[in-house]
Amino acid sequence: MDYVYAPGKNHLFVPGPVNIPEPVLRAMNRNNEDYRSPAVPALTKTLLEDVKKIFKSTTGTTFLIPTTGTGAWESALTNTLSPGDRIVSFLIGQFSLLWIDQQQRLNFNVDVVESDWGQGANLDVLESKLATDGGHTIKAICIVHNETATGVTNDLSKVRFLLDKYKHPALLLVDGVSSICALDFRMDEWGVDVALTGSQKALSLPTGLGIICASPKALEASKTSKSVKVFFDWKDYLKFYNLGTYWPYTPSIQLLYGLRAALDLLFEEGLDNVIARHSRLGKATRLAVEAWGLKNCTQKEEWFSDTVTAVLVPSYIDSAEIVRRAWKRYNLSLGLGLNKVAGKVFRIGHLGNLNELQLLGCLAGVEMVLKDVGYPVKLGSGVAAASAYLQNNIPLIPSRI
Amino acid sequence: MDYVYAPGKNHLFVPGPVNIPEPVLRAMNRNNEDYRSPAVPALTKTLLEDVKKIFKSTTGTTFLIPTTGTGAWESALTNTLSPGDRIVSFLIGQFSLLWIDQQQRLNFNVDVVESDWGQGANLDVLESKLATDGGHTIKAICIVHNETATGVTNDLSKVRFLLDKYKHPALLLVDGVSSICALDFRMDEWGVDVALTGSQKALSLPTGLGIICASPKALEASKTSKSVKVFFDWKDYLKFYNLGTYWPYTPSIQLLYGLRAALDLLFEEGLDNVIARHSRLGKATRLAVEAWGLKNCTQKEEWFSDTVTAVLVPSYIDSAEIVRRAWKRYNLSLGLGLNKVAGKVFRIGHLGNLNELQLLGCLAGVEMVLKDVGYPVKLGSGVAAASAYLQNNIPLIPSRI
Amino acid sequence: MDYVYAPGKNHLFVPGPVNIPEPVLRAMNRNNEDYRSPAVPALTKTLLEDVKKIFKSTTGTTFLIPTTGTGAWESALTNTLSPGDRIVSFLIGQFSLLWIDQQQRLNFNVDVVESDWGQGANLDVLESKLATDGGHTIKAICIVHNETATGVTNDLSKVRFLLDKYKHPALLLVDGVSSICALDFRMDEWGVDVALTGSQKALSLPTGLGIICASPKALEASKTSKSVKVFFDWKDYLKFYNLGTYWPYTPSIQLLYGLRAALDLLFEEGLDNVIARHSRLGKATRLAVEAWGLKNCTQKEEWFSDTVTAVLVPSYIDSAEIVRRAWKRYNLSLGLGLNKVAGKVFRIGHLGNLNELQLLGCLAGVEMVLKDVGYPVKLGSGVAAASAYLQNNIPLIPSRI
Amino acid sequence: MDYVYAPGKNHLFVPGPVNIPEPVLRAMNRNNEDYRSPAVPALTKTLLEDVKKIFKSTTGTTFLIPTTGTGAWESALTNTLSPGDRIVSFLIGQFSLLWIDQQQRLNFNVDVVESDWGQGANLDVLESKLATDGGHTIKAICIVHNETATGVTNDLSKVRFLLDKYKHPALLLVDGVSSICALDFRMDEWGVDVALTGSQKALSLPTGLGIICASPKALEASKTSKSVKVFFDWKDYLKFYNLGTYWPYTPSIQLLYGLRAALDLLFEEGLDNVIARHSRLGKATRLAVEAWGLKNCTQKEEWFSDTVTAVLVPSYIDSAEIVRRAWKRYNLSLGLGLNKVAGKVFRIGHLGNLNELQLLGCLAGVEMVLKDVGYPVKLGSGVAAASAYLQNNIPLIPSRI
Repeated sequence: MDYVYAPGKNHLFVPGPVNIPEPVLRAMNRNNEDYRSPAVPALTKTLLEDVKKIFKSTTGTTFLIPTTGTGAWESALTNTLSPGDRIVSFLIGQFSLLWIDQQQRLNFNVDVVESDWGQGANLDVLESKLATDGGHTIKAICIVHNETATGVTNDLSKVRFLLDKYKHPALLLVDGVSSICALDFRMDEWGVDVALTGSQKALSLPTGLGIICASPKALEASKTSKSVKVFFDWKDYLKFYNLGTYWPYTPSIQLLYGLRAALDLLFEEGLDNVIARHSRLGKATRLAVEAWGLKNCTQKEEWFSDTVTAVLVPSYIDSAEIVRRAWKRYNLSLGLGLNKVAGKVFRIGHLGNLNELQLLGCLAGVEMVLKDVGYPVKLGSGVAAASAYLQNNIPLIPSRI
Repeated sequence: MDYVYAPGKNHLFVPGPVNIPEPVLRAMNRNNEDYRSPAVPALTKTLLEDVKKIFKSTTGTTFLIPTTGTGAWESALTNTLSPGDRIVSFLIGQFSLLWIDQQQRLNFNVDVVESDWGQGANLDVLESKLATDGGHTIKAICIVHNETATGVTNDLSKVRFLLDKYKHPALLLVDGVSSICALDFRMDEWGVDVALTGSQKALSLPTGLGIICASPKALEASKTSKSVKVFFDWKDYLKFYNLGTYWPYTPSIQLLYGLRAALDLLFEEGLDNVIARHSRLGKATRLAVEAWGLKNCTQKEEWFSDTVTAVLVPSYIDSAEIVRRAWKRYNLSLGLGLNKVAGKVFRIGHLGNLNELQLLGCLAGVEMVLKDVGYPVKLGSGVAAASAYLQNNIPLIPSRI
Repeated sequence: MDYVYAPGKNHLFVPGPVNIPEPVLRAMNRNNEDYRSPAVPALTKTLLEDVKKIFKSTTGTTFLIPTTGTGAWESALTNTLSPGDRIVSFLIGQFSLLWIDQQQRLNFNVDVVESDWGQGANLDVLESKLATDGGHTIKAICIVHNETATGVTNDLSKVRFLLDKYKHPALLLVDGVSSICALDFRMDEWGVDVALTGSQKALSLPTGLGIICASPKALEASKTSKSVKVFFDWKDYLKFYNLGTYWPYTPSIQLLYGLRAALDLLFEEGLDNVIARHSRLGKATRLAVEAWGLKNCTQKEEWFSDTVTAVLVPSYIDSAEIVRRAWKRYNLSLGLGLNKVAGKVFRIGHLGNLNELQLLGCLAGVEMVLKDVGYPVKLGSGVAAASAYLQNNIPLIPSRI
Repeated sequence: MDYVYAPGKNHLFVPGPVNIPEPVLRAMNRNNEDYRSPAVPALTKTLLEDVKKIFKSTTGTTFLIPTTGTGAWESALTNTLSPGDRIVSFLIGQFSLLWIDQQQRLNFNVDVVESDWGQGANLDVLESKLATDGGHTIKAICIVHNETATGVTNDLSKVRFLLDKYKHPALLLVDGVSSICALDFRMDEWGVDVALTGSQKALSLPTGLGIICASPKALEASKTSKSVKVFFDWKDYLKFYNLGTYWPYTPSIQLLYGLRAALDLLFEEGLDNVIARHSRLGKATRLAVEAWGLKNCTQKEEWFSDTVTAVLVPSYIDSAEIVRRAWKRYNLSLGLGLNKVAGKVFRIGHLGNLNELQLLGCLAGVEMVLKDVGYPVKLGSGVAAASAYLQNNIPLIPSRI
């Protein structure tokens, strides 16, 4: 089973699935339970309520669907839209591409707004589309908050600003898979209609929960949506919410208790402190990249991502070799470059339950890998740049003061 | 979290989710891993191959979908059929009812063949439908192997016999959720085209994997199916199988290792020994029910289920009170009566990683509950009847001889 | 590793080590920690304080020694006594015998007061010794509260009564290994000077902690004790208690967190409820033994043990064969007869985190084993007798009302 | 419980207890078992045999005692020596001091050979003692292989050389607590008579097993030793070894399975590869210390320890503040300076299941702490020096080639 065993901890720096904290592993280390006993609904009730906080929403309705991010996407689309509906969707990397592929295969009419990989969503194009859509043919804007393939964060407040400017009623559907619980995400303030994430990302759980928050407007839209769905149908959930039994089909008992523990840890640390920690980790990583003399795939500072950094390598190096070597020699798991940027970038995921010394260990490892593959890095340079920043900015651990 | 704590083990006798064996809990007690490293595909490859054995199939193609049984149903239907396709489907209890509801909502044209709850599928009606369908308008037969709500097992070999008799090309889609790994299931021999189960049933894992086996004919059908699907689309899986990376989206690392452990335990015990054990547990339970003077909801011996027994209670007793009391006083989890049989039956699940003494503890508990609610049971009577049978039939544990 | 794997749960009914509850397993599922950080002393402080409650002591000083019950015995003796000191000690079974052997090998001068195995300590002999010991040559009375080999519980209040009657200053050292946390134990009220137990008994933890409570008088005695000891020396502990770092050498981090969880469960259930539960389990077991037509090794009701029942088998049966067969056929672990009662008794341990349905499963198993080995038991008879009693006496689970 | 929670992994760099690998945590995540069933002796037999390999002994007899290193010391002494016996013992730091304290309290006649803390055992003094002990009044040489307080490794082959040179029959008793499984340890080749370690050190288990290997000569000596002992008496073990039941009292089931897993990991990596890994980690740490401009407490290269490095800090800095701050700000656990070197050194433990990137994370953390407390370290300098060495010396992970 562990036939690829290596001594010491695996250094897991892919942008998901991420490290699970011990208290969460402990909470999940349990036998199954009858999900129809009074205990599981009581637990579920607290989860559905508390999970709203990670979206910064008080008005939303939440769904914990036994699926992945891909399923959560499908749930968001099929519950709020009908076949043929016009969607504006931004193609800026592999995950937005996959979502668009899904949108098209689900028979929506997608206006694809493409950017270079490394750039954010082209909101100028969005504005012109909104400006010329007096008839409100656009039913939804679909956007990833953070494109995991390129490390690009889009400005959702600007999207809301444009929708408001043109008084456009389109739904705003947001993939927050690699942002929620790590980046500042303000569902209610930004007027997001459906936001979603997966348990294995910043929540730091195993894969298995698609976590969705739907605005009242999204719920209203779901009443008339004509998309065919059963497993992903919110109506079945809402029916069981009303019954107080909560589950139309069997949930993972382990993930429910795990989610409880994960939320407790988040709230103990404080969501804004979690976000600040990700900001520190992102900044430190970018300083290291700069010190190595390498370029960030993200082309402008406004799009820098605090959860994942895609690093461009010189053309004489195959970035896939970096990832392979990191795993084979240093027990370090980095993210591959995908599709258009395959071979050109490797990715450092710095999200979830992670601290600064873990990141510095990773950065030291990346330096050695870079040297291994022939890049003339100065060993220690990235760590030095990152720790100069971190040493000035890490707060004391509140529970230990 | 454990605010409903009670001393000692919970006696889990719902027909799913079931008890997880310790070696499986151990295997799942682990951090996340990069699913794009070489390790996870190598593990997945062994799983996809070995999981065929629980279906007794050598020609099938397997899918491990991050979903529940409901999702596995949807996957089976939407990959093989097109909207409007005519299906023959048997309504014999709550789970067949839910599947039929799904079939209808997915826009198939369903011939519902209804039986009294407690009876098996009416195969005479099937025969007459097949006999008169020279034009092969019936595209699929959908049948649950074991109806979990009533404890009724259908004879799939007879379904195959009828299809062959009329040389009918309809696909045979089987819900094996509460049968596979517990009852004898012969995918290839019976010409089943899609069979499916969920990880939390006889495999004794947490919820989270829909496990599907598709015959070559089902795969062929999937090429022309016009049902809209993305998350459940087998094509995405097949594409990644060909790439050798296996996963179109993130799997649960923990469930993969758990499945490996669960299969290892099954194969160590021997699948036929597992089936024989379930046969013993089913028989022992039915003997107890008889000794208590109660009726089995299942109306004929040919339909008796070896994974779940639904027990009819006298009309002056509310079966839901039995379930409530079992949990509140004895830390015993029994299954409720559902829908048409709500209040009339309670259910004893006896599937998964379970042994005879666990069952006898449950039966002793049921006796006390029956007395609590006013049924004049002779305490010890069911246990006596069950153990008289078991004492004659339990083999020595092979590893301990 | 699990080469003796058998399906389902192992039914663990030896009188220790006993079943560990899931919340305790979870609490121990953790990495090591620096035991010199502020966290471990803070945790230890709560443990040393709270563990007094299981002794019903407010005046005692507690020690958590990384050892077993045998080590705890040695700690009790060597800290309070000096070589050559006269001890009165009661030989009533294998564990009192082993303790006496230790006392002798540690060079104490032991007056052994022997009883038939199956009888309690002969307190008449104690009285006559005290009556004639005006010179107070007896320095300590050593007594097991509950002899695990025969299922005999001694009346400690009577021992205190006799000491008081004769105003005798001898220390009262008590082995509470199979009693504390299960039987009513009143350290302060009974004037016990040293009481001890092991973590793997009624506390339901793994083996590894010898848990000791010493009265002020015992602590005083420890200042002048001349027995040679280092590892077991309380002085080292007391020194580190004063320093606030608590540990003279490395503790098991896992057992500390496990003990915290075990105490939390005990206090949640309520220690007196725990004792009442053991009383029910003991009574139910004895009723079953009677129904089987077998004799209890314990010769009088006043000595009946609520934590372990030693069952005498007819002379034509080898009780060891019962234990072997229980394990080989039913995955049931029973206790062997030891030494003088080897082959003559088997033992049912009913202590620790255990509930009534678990016990009934065990009793049903014992019945089948008895039949297997040729004893003409009426199957179901013991379960019937036990459940008739239990059904009248089990309270509702408080957390579930 | 986790009231001192901090996000991410704790960076555990005390020289014990050390990080437990996940496969070992998994192996220990289990219920108790009857230790008198056939399974536990069968497991124990493999452990007693395989554990010899970590001592590089084929002729030794091993003991797995439920105790700590302190108890293992006591076991080594009291089984082989008699009160009043003359011992030569080397005082070179806190742990050798504690062992000597034990030797004295156990009434041995100890020739203490003291060195400055930071120096190794003074073998010249040993030689002169041996040279003048024609009467063989010296019964044992007691020496720590690796002094954990100062990071000093003694040359045991030289001790053997001297004993042989003078044909001296004294027993050679070795504390290998922070060496065995990490440093090259050659019991048979060096003629060590008793070697011992604790489970929480390089074996990377929880605390709870004192692991001892006794030479035939030591076993012979144990037959005539007059030291008083019961719990630690090897005779009880040997008696149960002969019976094939192995345990004179209850072992920790969890630690037995954990030890099995730990040995399996060691053998999979290869003991010599494990030793080479420690050599790399030690060298890398020393290079970092040098780059920081700090001194190693160890005064000569011949004594450098590959398991722990004690770092001297300038006199204007309190090393305890470094340890406190590391924990409070960086979730980094370092070792305090003890006794004579309190306030003067902090320690980096680099033993057990640890890899290079973990160490580099620690070193980066130490740099930031040093800066925090006012030492003018160049951030990144130590990491640079360490990784320059490591990048040239880390082998590919064999299982991943």
